[in-house]
Amino acid sequence: MMTKRPSQAVNPSQKSELIDDLWSPRVITEMNDYQFKVVKIEGDFVWHSHADTDEAFYVLKGELRIDFRDGSVALGPGDIYVVPQGVEHKPYAAREVHLMLIEPKGVKNTGDEGGTLTAENEVWI
Amino acid sequence: MMTKRPSQAVNPSQKSELIDDLWSPRVITEMNDYQFKVVKIEGDFVWHSHADTDEAFYVLKGELRIDFRDGSVALGPGDIYVVPQGVEHKPYAAREVHLMLIEPKGVKNTGDEGGTLTAENEVWI
Repeated sequence: MMTKRPSQAVNPSQKSELIDDLWSPRVITEMNDYQFKVVKIEGDFVWHSHADTDEAFYVLKGELRIDFRDGSVALGPGDIYVVPQGVEHKPYAAREVHLMLIEPKGVKNTGDEGGTLTAENEVWI
Repeated sequence: MMTKRPSQAVNPSQKSELIDDLWSPRVITEMNDYQFKVVKIEGDFVWHSHADTDEAFYVLKGELRIDFRDGSVALGPGDIYVVPQGVEHKPYAAREVHLMLIEPKGVKNTGDEGGTLTAENEVWI
């Protein structure tokens, strides 16, 4: 019963301020086989999809647009959007935006697309 | 590939303002077999644990304390804490607090304890 528990809460907005690089998700905590990550982005990401999982976006700071082949969705601070499994999407931020991502461990940021923006996984902050 | 996707983002803080009852989680969106819920609480909940899953708490508004048998953790707005599977805990709020919970579908709010504070599941807002 006395599983080890974290000694204190974690604040994703504070964590995201510590990140140096754009497009480089950092893990902040875990829940079962899922991870909470923070990431800073600006500009256009690559079109990609995740064949095996949904992916939750939560905006910490700034304005995010997620483009789809059939439209787009706008998110402001405190908004959540869950991109369904298999749906092609492309995050876009006109100015720097800080996000929290929630998704299963091991999900690659560029999904099935790969390429130079593919980030290392399992980097904690 | 063209799985149905939500038409727009959801804002947990706005959703939590719509809730009438304390201790009654409301589902706002889903990710794979997980749900995002919002809940308003005030006062003491019951001691309980979840044998099969971790449970993530995210504070939208107010101050939350989570009591454990060996201490407690304080959370303010924007803080996250993941209670590990099997660990007894008791949420407490001196004044009304709005939370987002992230956990697998079907998790009972009172865990293995049950009792009068057990809420209906699968109520959306």
